[in-house]
Amino acid sequence: MMNAIIENQRVSAIAALFRRAPHQLNRIHESDAEILRLPGSDDTYLAVTTDAISEEIASGLYTDPYQIGWMTVMANMSDLAAVAAVPAGVLLAETLPASYPGADVREIQHGIEDACEAAGTWILGGDTNEGAQLVLSACALGTITGRILSRRGCTSGDILYASGPLGRGNAFAFQQLLSDNISPFPYRPLARIRESQIIQRYARCCMDTSDGAFGTLDQLMRLNLVGFRLDDGWENSLDPESRDVLRAASLPEWLLLAGPHGEFEILFTVAPSDEASLIDESGSIDWHPVRLGQVIDEPSVVLTVGGEAVPFATGWMRNLFSDVSRPLNQKLNDLLEYDLAQQEGAYDHVHA
Amino acid sequence: MMNAIIENQRVSAIAALFRRAPHQLNRIHESDAEILRLPGSDDTYLAVTTDAISEEIASGLYTDPYQIGWMTVMANMSDLAAVAAVPAGVLLAETLPASYPGADVREIQHGIEDACEAAGTWILGGDTNEGAQLVLSACALGTITGRILSRRGCTSGDILYASGPLGRGNAFAFQQLLSDNISPFPYRPLARIRESQIIQRYARCCMDTSDGAFGTLDQLMRLNLVGFRLDDGWENSLDPESRDVLRAASLPEWLLLAGPHGEFEILFTVAPSDEASLIDESGSIDWHPVRLGQVIDEPSVVLTVGGEAVPFATGWMRNLFSDVSRPLNQKLNDLLEYDLAQQEGAYDHVHA
Repeated sequence: MMNAIIENQRVSAIAALFRRAPHQLNRIHESDAEILRLPGSDDTYLAVTTDAISEEIASGLYTDPYQIGWMTVMANMSDLAAVAAVPAGVLLAETLPASYPGADVREIQHGIEDACEAAGTWILGGDTNEGAQLVLSACALGTITGRILSRRGCTSGDILYASGPLGRGNAFAFQQLLSDNISPFPYRPLARIRESQIIQRYARCCMDTSDGAFGTLDQLMRLNLVGFRLDDGWENSLDPESRDVLRAASLPEWLLLAGPHGEFEILFTVAPSDEASLIDESGSIDWHPVRLGQVIDEPSVVLTVGGEAVPFATGWMRNLFSDVSRPLNQKLNDLLEYDLAQQEGAYDHVHA
Repeated sequence: MMNAIIENQRVSAIAALFRRAPHQLNRIHESDAEILRLPGSDDTYLAVTTDAISEEIASGLYTDPYQIGWMTVMANMSDLAAVAAVPAGVLLAETLPASYPGADVREIQHGIEDACEAAGTWILGGDTNEGAQLVLSACALGTITGRILSRRGCTSGDILYASGPLGRGNAFAFQQLLSDNISPFPYRPLARIRESQIIQRYARCCMDTSDGAFGTLDQLMRLNLVGFRLDDGWENSLDPESRDVLRAASLPEWLLLAGPHGEFEILFTVAPSDEASLIDESGSIDWHPVRLGQVIDEPSVVLTVGGEAVPFATGWMRNLFSDVSRPLNQKLNDLLEYDLAQQEGAYDHVHA
């Protein structure tokens, strides 16, 4: 099940080369951040994660230096949020081309600092190098008190929630990389650090949508051997501005869930008996989690499209996007062909 | 004093853009690793550091994939050793070109794993990206129990020690980058993790030699407003094989201290009254720290060369090496001219 996904195979192959730390509490594939028990601490755990902004720069997805700085921090903060860690600081490793303008370097740092302030954290230090290509890498630390959240633990009957509307990351990527629109809408996600303290009390399983909603649901499906059925009217869980972008381009809205550039929300499930308390507590911090659907027995991701409940080939889509040799517009065409086949009821023969 | 060094100016300028974390215990410039007080822990501190192997690959200094992996871990371990932290784990951020051979990728991971095992630590996780240029970046965590070591705290009269013989990093770099020798001797430093637990009990100040011995002494000089006078016979503190390399090339041996590619030893000072205990304890783990000299009032780095005690322009040398636009062989020529002027007693007029 896990190994049907090329990215999972790759991660497993790398991990197999290394011994596992005896004080590491999370298992491979099962957590957005690494979780450690530290000496001298009984009920506080350390969460650490690293994420680089590299392909996003090389592909032209991020061109604005301020956004590059912002995303460097937020991608890591979102991993901390998915394990309900309180941020303790960030280390930066920057590779800058000699020719990169000084004003742009300052804009990057400005975006980094603003993102740290927004997430309630600090730059602790770092390392700067000169290199052929701009790469911003960060490592974030946080502390976990109480329950350790992981991607595993949901069961059939659980209610599926998103921490906020979905699709903005993919709509931004579409505008930036595949449309003639020269000024995409702003994309500056805010990791759900504050909300994660409530999610921690109720979630049965939990994962951030940094690789898109389908990518997240597909991974949760494989880890938990369950499926997800989105509620009728799932389109209302999408970011309204993102829906406008897709409609204007005459593209099906489910592409906002399928693309690999996520929105850095958290997907989580709760027991039906906890739903009322979740809504109550989240209201107290003026946060409105979005109900997406239910956990089902059958391991597939099911959406109602054109009045019919259809399972989506989310694993095929993930592998499609991890094939770097195929140009992005061809991948979009593949998805549109899939959409067509689906409307003809033929999709499940095409992509098993 | 600090700002006479271009690298210090650069680090200060970046740090000025960011707020400082209230729970960060070290000050800027004064520690090899960032040190944090964590909630739920009274007498254990967290040490974190990040170091990328990027310029070393781009310049051709490291070409062997196994060595690249090894150094990625050890550069970070050496920072932990300089604050007497017990390693808790490493996160990797790898940027690999699509064309990079699979066998070489495995050799990198092999070097990473062997270095982790040698330093008593583990890979916790990481992030892999595709990019134009090979860059290996790591972030290391460790815990400190007891005294917090820093680069500040030595006083005139202290005895200066190195954790081992000096010069191997620079001799390797000379062979690899500036000589016709096609097979340099092996360079695979082992960070002084174990020894740092003894250093912690005695050191007044402490810093690793990742940027070379003169770079380290120069920084300690500026931070502590003291100087260092190396003992007569300082040449005996050099790695014998490295001395052979320099002699064979008819180059002055002090170049082994002056180059910017260090040996990842620890330089530290102890009170004269602690010297006997240090030697006694270090003997118990079969470790033999090398006595280098003494801390003096006058802020300069003084060596006896040709029978005369002469202050070396270590600040000028550091700035020389941080000028990336100047080719390495020209930098070597600058140092050889300096050597000549020094022999003629004219050096101090040339480089004030």
